[in-house]
Amino acid sequence: MPERLGSGTLRLSGGPWVSGWASSVGKKETEGPLGGLFDQCHTDDSLGQQSWEKAESLLLKEAAHLALRKAKVRPEEIDCVFAGDLLNQCAASVFGLRGLEIPFLGQYGACSTMAQTLAMAAVFVEAGAARRALAVTSSHFCSAERQFRLPLEYGGQRTPTAQWTATAAGALILSGDLPAGTSQGIAVRDVRFGQITDLGVHDAANMGAAMAPAACRTLCGYFADTGASPQDFDLILTGDLGAVGSDLLRGLMLREGWDIAPVQNDGGLMLFDRAAQDVHAGGSGCGCSASVLCAAVLPELAAGRMKDVLFVGTGALMSTTTSQQGESIPGVAHLVRLVSARREEGTK
Amino acid sequence: MPERLGSGTLRLSGGPWVSGWASSVGKKETEGPLGGLFDQCHTDDSLGQQSWEKAESLLLKEAAHLALRKAKVRPEEIDCVFAGDLLNQCAASVFGLRGLEIPFLGQYGACSTMAQTLAMAAVFVEAGAARRALAVTSSHFCSAERQFRLPLEYGGQRTPTAQWTATAAGALILSGDLPAGTSQGIAVRDVRFGQITDLGVHDAANMGAAMAPAACRTLCGYFADTGASPQDFDLILTGDLGAVGSDLLRGLMLREGWDIAPVQNDGGLMLFDRAAQDVHAGGSGCGCSASVLCAAVLPELAAGRMKDVLFVGTGALMSTTTSQQGESIPGVAHLVRLVSARREEGTK
Repeated sequence: MPERLGSGTLRLSGGPWVSGWASSVGKKETEGPLGGLFDQCHTDDSLGQQSWEKAESLLLKEAAHLALRKAKVRPEEIDCVFAGDLLNQCAASVFGLRGLEIPFLGQYGACSTMAQTLAMAAVFVEAGAARRALAVTSSHFCSAERQFRLPLEYGGQRTPTAQWTATAAGALILSGDLPAGTSQGIAVRDVRFGQITDLGVHDAANMGAAMAPAACRTLCGYFADTGASPQDFDLILTGDLGAVGSDLLRGLMLREGWDIAPVQNDGGLMLFDRAAQDVHAGGSGCGCSASVLCAAVLPELAAGRMKDVLFVGTGALMSTTTSQQGESIPGVAHLVRLVSARREEGTK
Repeated sequence: MPERLGSGTLRLSGGPWVSGWASSVGKKETEGPLGGLFDQCHTDDSLGQQSWEKAESLLLKEAAHLALRKAKVRPEEIDCVFAGDLLNQCAASVFGLRGLEIPFLGQYGACSTMAQTLAMAAVFVEAGAARRALAVTSSHFCSAERQFRLPLEYGGQRTPTAQWTATAAGALILSGDLPAGTSQGIAVRDVRFGQITDLGVHDAANMGAAMAPAACRTLCGYFADTGASPQDFDLILTGDLGAVGSDLLRGLMLREGWDIAPVQNDGGLMLFDRAAQDVHAGGSGCGCSASVLCAAVLPELAAGRMKDVLFVGTGALMSTTTSQQGESIPGVAHLVRLVSARREEGTK
């Protein structure tokens, strides 16, 4: 059973174990600093499909199937899938997972969706509501540009604070037990769901600024509930604040008495080489932090090179309609603590 | 802890108790057969707002606040809110709940969203991940028409199989305990999450046909897992299949050996008078089954006039983009069993 700490952080104790994970990415992501670490790399962002939306669905499907294969689990052994993406009505998730026959729970947290789906899957497994659960998300530069901004053919200029939506998907499988014969693994230890936080940022080309206050709030609540401090962690991985949002978050945290600069990094900064790849403030999109987590963080935890990581997914909860109607951009941030852990004898 | 039965039905035992509920609806819904039963009725569907989207946000916000007031609970006593709607990026939920300061988990299940959010809240309360959780959803005829179909000003003709999106919102509060001094209440006993089911229906003006197979699958799985049969229930409330989908579901169930006709009704058929209100195949939209559940079913369970109800939320998981690209319409159906129950002495 999850234990409630303080103002609402949930501490999990039955694992839950990350028993498989995978990432699938596009061309620009393959050419970036993490290019050698992804499970599946595409040189053609259309993936041979007739639309960008179909390409994104396939990317998400690939990540899910690869994670299943790596975990040596068949789809019918998964009790539910938590999935979401940026497309209207979560279409990439629906159409990507349509053939899997797993009970489907669509989630929407904008770019925080990987943290949200992972946290939901962990709570369900901890509670015994699922023996195994799948968490998966995606984004695609081309489907996002035309839905949220402008058709690609228009060739619009981007502002310096803008982020580049990653063409990427990531999938994780949570299990109630480690594989037979294994005593060491990656466990989800803590989960914290964030409140909607809106300080009135209106610039849809500066998502980092809109999301940083939500990340600050979630982190401060977590430190207060647990007595932990930034130096307890090998990495605080935010995703995806980019350069502008990361700077803001570090400053906001300093004002609250926490120096996270030595351990904070951001999925949007890790995925691309900002100097060489013309992504302005960095990467973004549900698939950005998802693929960075799967490619660059989970293997470090599995190998024991990292022991304790806070993953803070951040989302900007606007739509084109709300922005056109003059609304500000509400942010949200969900936190998941991942630890390299040994299963105690006699416990599951 | 939830107990897993058979192929994945979850049986809950610690309540969870429905400790408050409320509905807020528009003009046409007020004029329908249930008009006297809603908590808040509007005669102006704009709710005095400058856009239909803002009106829908306000409708959802009203339902949430009314449910809190009726449950005599302050927002800070709610540990998380599961919310979703039909608008792109779940905007009605985000902007309606922005001021509540409750950890926010956006859900997307199209018209099944009330069942999905209610089931999630029940599992979280059962597992101790939340002491109290809020489940809320909305839809609005005018915001849905212009997003999914045509601008209202166009005055397009509707086909006979088309459904009318309800201008309505419903909210429920789930608690781990009954109020002090109370020994009788409404408990969520069983939950079943559905798989994506797509039999190739392409007609976006016939959602009932697209969703009926998913409802059949979820119901048959539930009966198989629990040994229950249709006559065990006072009501099987589907939402929202309308007239076409309900007929199809009854036929599909008969082929599986179950006659649900004597106990099945549908939110889309209950909300409007089809003969008088020109809604063709009936109502639809997240708020349809949500408001019918809150106005016409929960009071019956609370009064003991109904003892045992299956609520089967059905969703059509398409977007305008996927339909324009020639995709079929995947359906999903989630089930929640609500019972009039007495709290056993000595148990929570």
